Amino acid sequence: MNLNKKEKYNDLGLDTKSISNDYRALNKDGTFNVKKENVSFFEGINIFHSLVSMSWLHFFGVLVLGYFTINLLFASLYLLIGTEHLTGIYSTTTFGQFIEAFFFSAQTITTLGYGQIAPLNLAANIVAAIESLLGLLIFALATGLMYGRFSKPIATIKYSSHAVIAPYNKINGFMFRVVNPKNNQLLEVEVNVTLSLKRDNSDLRDFYSLALERSKVVFFPTTWTVVHPIDSKSPLHGYDEHDVLEKEAEFIVVIKAFDESFSQSVYSRSSYKAQEIKWGEKFIYLTQRDRTGITVDVSKIDETYTADLN
Amino acid sequence: MNLNKKEKYNDLGLDTKSISNDYRALNKDGTFNVKKENVSFFEGINIFHSLVSMSWLHFFGVLVLGYFTINLLFASLYLLIGTEHLTGIYSTTTFGQFIEAFFFSAQTITTLGYGQIAPLNLAANIVAAIESLLGLLIFALATGLMYGRFSKPIATIKYSSHAVIAPYNKINGFMFRVVNPKNNQLLEVEVNVTLSLKRDNSDLRDFYSLALERSKVVFFPTTWTVVHPIDSKSPLHGYDEHDVLEKEAEFIVVIKAFDESFSQSVYSRSSYKAQEIKWGEKFIYLTQRDRTGITVDVSKIDETYTADLN
Amino acid sequence: MNLNKKEKYNDLGLDTKSISNDYRALNKDGTFNVKKENVSFFEGINIFHSLVSMSWLHFFGVLVLGYFTINLLFASLYLLIGTEHLTGIYSTTTFGQFIEAFFFSAQTITTLGYGQIAPLNLAANIVAAIESLLGLLIFALATGLMYGRFSKPIATIKYSSHAVIAPYNKINGFMFRVVNPKNNQLLEVEVNVTLSLKRDNSDLRDFYSLALERSKVVFFPTTWTVVHPIDSKSPLHGYDEHDVLEKEAEFIVVIKAFDESFSQSVYSRSSYKAQEIKWGEKFIYLTQRDRTGITVDVSKIDETYTADLN
Amino acid sequence: MNLNKKEKYNDLGLDTKSISNDYRALNKDGTFNVKKENVSFFEGINIFHSLVSMSWLHFFGVLVLGYFTINLLFASLYLLIGTEHLTGIYSTTTFGQFIEAFFFSAQTITTLGYGQIAPLNLAANIVAAIESLLGLLIFALATGLMYGRFSKPIATIKYSSHAVIAPYNKINGFMFRVVNPKNNQLLEVEVNVTLSLKRDNSDLRDFYSLALERSKVVFFPTTWTVVHPIDSKSPLHGYDEHDVLEKEAEFIVVIKAFDESFSQSVYSRSSYKAQEIKWGEKFIYLTQRDRTGITVDVSKIDETYTADLN
Repeated sequence: MNLNKKEKYNDLGLDTKSISNDYRALNKDGTFNVKKENVSFFEGINIFHSLVSMSWLHFFGVLVLGYFTINLLFASLYLLIGTEHLTGIYSTTTFGQFIEAFFFSAQTITTLGYGQIAPLNLAANIVAAIESLLGLLIFALATGLMYGRFSKPIATIKYSSHAVIAPYNKINGFMFRVVNPKNNQLLEVEVNVTLSLKRDNSDLRDFYSLALERSKVVFFPTTWTVVHPIDSKSPLHGYDEHDVLEKEAEFIVVIKAFDESFSQSVYSRSSYKAQEIKWGEKFIYLTQRDRTGITVDVSKIDETYTADLN
Repeated sequence: MNLNKKEKYNDLGLDTKSISNDYRALNKDGTFNVKKENVSFFEGINIFHSLVSMSWLHFFGVLVLGYFTINLLFASLYLLIGTEHLTGIYSTTTFGQFIEAFFFSAQTITTLGYGQIAPLNLAANIVAAIESLLGLLIFALATGLMYGRFSKPIATIKYSSHAVIAPYNKINGFMFRVVNPKNNQLLEVEVNVTLSLKRDNSDLRDFYSLALERSKVVFFPTTWTVVHPIDSKSPLHGYDEHDVLEKEAEFIVVIKAFDESFSQSVYSRSSYKAQEIKWGEKFIYLTQRDRTGITVDVSKIDETYTADLN
Repeated sequence: MNLNKKEKYNDLGLDTKSISNDYRALNKDGTFNVKKENVSFFEGINIFHSLVSMSWLHFFGVLVLGYFTINLLFASLYLLIGTEHLTGIYSTTTFGQFIEAFFFSAQTITTLGYGQIAPLNLAANIVAAIESLLGLLIFALATGLMYGRFSKPIATIKYSSHAVIAPYNKINGFMFRVVNPKNNQLLEVEVNVTLSLKRDNSDLRDFYSLALERSKVVFFPTTWTVVHPIDSKSPLHGYDEHDVLEKEAEFIVVIKAFDESFSQSVYSRSSYKAQEIKWGEKFIYLTQRDRTGITVDVSKIDETYTADLN
Repeated sequence: MNLNKKEKYNDLGLDTKSISNDYRALNKDGTFNVKKENVSFFEGINIFHSLVSMSWLHFFGVLVLGYFTINLLFASLYLLIGTEHLTGIYSTTTFGQFIEAFFFSAQTITTLGYGQIAPLNLAANIVAAIESLLGLLIFALATGLMYGRFSKPIATIKYSSHAVIAPYNKINGFMFRVVNPKNNQLLEVEVNVTLSLKRDNSDLRDFYSLALERSKVVFFPTTWTVVHPIDSKSPLHGYDEHDVLEKEAEFIVVIKAFDESFSQSVYSRSSYKAQEIKWGEKFIYLTQRDRTGITVDVSKIDETYTADLN
């Protein structure tokens, strides 16, 4: 029925037009090849998201630069008011006084307050009172950002760098391997694989939801080889390596899981292009057993051996 | 069956009585035209919600005013005790002493503590100890609020300002366009459109859940034109612009999505009144492709061209 | 079928034995009448939960008491070391020195540090360094608690204090009314009502899931009168007020909603005992319309008028 | 049908190879017997997760050690610059100066700033300004960690240390008992039990999802005896104690619930090995009723009495 079809069809929301063989809808790290133009500043900006997502190097760069700039500003302000409003300034040159005001500002904004230099009169007191309030708010914000950065759940799933097409039961199967290298437990892990193929003599693309050997597991303590059996119902049925390259195949993978450490749902995305498939190779076995348990050698996730296709 | 009907019917929980053609159940920004009266203070108040939802200008206003007021209060307290209990007070006038006490209070509540002025005796020490505890608690609260304000997930979906009724396949369709202007990825985006029509010769309203071309997408990297095909089953079937205005039509849109940055579900709401529909106009194409990816021109979300209706 | 029955049956996990007519499984505020005994200290304790759930008065009591106690402890420590290790101690009596040490401790734990009194030698410096670290950790904890207290989502649903049995269409209905007095929007509100009746000549109780006129709404901006129509399939069919009292009826209400302010699911529970039902009364209409919108008078949620039962 | 089977089959994602009778897939505390090898440092590390999950003793150890180390570092730095750049250093020996610099560093990083010792020249001022910024960031991080540690939802479910096989209705049943010893309410509690049996003459294991008397309850205020009735469809049908030991049976339990205190889903896991089953024992009744409510004696969760099996 039409309805059943709809039920089964997993609408990805991706563009159906083909661009080139180089193009991939989804990059290996799960980002999209989409740029947004002419977004107005306030619509497009998301300060928290940016500050939480940037690299630690960037983040500390922003913090240190901000700290430096704000102290420069307040040092100028103290100088403008006149350093006679501060006790404990010993320099006689303007530059020397600026330096002392700069460090007085640093001691004020961090609420350190050694007291060696201190505001004496109304004007300096007002500026210092405002600066210390500002300092507390800025570090309140920094606290939130540090927490946001650390507590951001990231699906830490590692994908094998290649997929393989290998013998599976009496037919062949499209396979890739995933592992969670971290210590957080991922639960109720669900995987969806969609195949995008270029239509013959057209620049449109068709999307096929691939049936999987198993698409959901309750626990994910070791490693998981996701298998799409290429049976007679598979859109890959009867295709060889050349066909798959010709049709600019892209396998789009979406994994959803519940991260127990953060008690939140996490998503992971990746994709395999036709060029990233090894034909007639099979993944080696990663786990070793002894009487007390199982050991998984994560570094061998990409290793394969030759296996004749059916 | 009755049951099937129930299953399909999406009960919005809105009032079924019509008021006037000007009235809209849902404002364009997703708020409701509902006022609650005679709510007792403690039942109605939600300090955190208010402080997290108010504008930044308001929020900083509240902070600065609070800081000023609390320092006024404590300055009065120090004056009441007597400034002879503080070292380092030089003023001889009451007003001058009040000013000095005010800034001593500011240095205490921010835990700055220059030490130029310091409590000397029991009474002043007690007040200062309480004030610094209070200060830490207030700034603990401010930290929470800053985090709450920044980490509040907001469905940042931007709607086309008008909907259109345009040719779609061999019939017509009701269409509007949405885009996510921010960098956060929205996943598993689900849209529901409900049509509210005034019943003939009555002030009651009927609600219809509209069937959509597609109602859920897994990714939402570019733009989405939501389409309700006006086929023979549509409640809009056979209506022209005049009928739709007469029946005071309101299209109520609810979008649910998973915001990956915040790992939380977000909702967005909007509505289109009959007056906000352009008949015989079609949205222009927003995306441009090159070999490396897709570019979306967000600023053109409202642009349409004339298209003859079927 | 057995299966259908199971599907429909909403297992509450409550005890099926009857105790007395006074007993209610669920209190009006949603708590349970259950006490746990002999729970070992570490199993039963949940410090965060307790500190976040207690009243503000209690919470500030704990904070102030903790602050006082910890300063007492450190003051004793400084005295033990000897006040000659601190500069700026002027008292000659032990009590006076203790007081000064107490306030020095307060200035240290809040990282205020006026510097009037300061550690001079190794021992005092070690204690002060530890105390300031401890202070920062304690206020880190307090920050988390303040945030936890404020950001805790609470289903703020207000129930009518009585339920009614009133005419509904051509039969009667069991009805109660709910309203959200706060400004947070509740979305996808779902209500479940379970009826618990004492079995005749037995102390066992039976539980019945009640069919509702509507059990889920998408928005909840105004008020909602939840209706269970007493048709021929209802477990209340044919019962009068006397029967319902005799059978010690308890209507257990569970409401689940999505709180938009906190982006989290919230639950609200309450119950109506047979004595809390008004027979032959109907709730008055709460909402008033004008051209710009709807006004809800929350204070009239309990008001009813007499209506002859069918 | 194949489909029905799939629906019912609960894929745990565990290894199907048997190791030894000692081996258990799941430890009693819900952890897995899996070790990951050769994980690269950056892939495997999850600082936040580690610092939030470690014991309080460990956590405070890390904090104190970090505090000590960072002060050592900065003390060395101040010494390197030369203590003539600091006012208030009285020692004449290098060691004495180091000690004073150490405590000056502690006063700076906690933003205590007594001011007794203070930076005098440019170099010392720069180091102190950096140190105080660093201090604020570190304590921002500590604040986040404290909050993360306390607000981490943990499914606090306590399992009976043994399971029993006891008479149930006219057949027998596999039973274990769970209780929530904490005050947080768990809602919508769902339990899944999977039986893992060694295949005869093979080292492979089969997994069976066990049908339960009831698998979900809305409330969980008291205690819950989870029962799998050993009827003719049960994989345990016809097995005696000896068979169950021989087949190295492991009962894997997964409980999912909604923790109302944290508004989050929580998972709890445990397992019972064949050796942890008491045959012909029944759990005693834990709850006592009086007119005002129910009392549960949590300490008796493991107590059983002899009961002849059917």
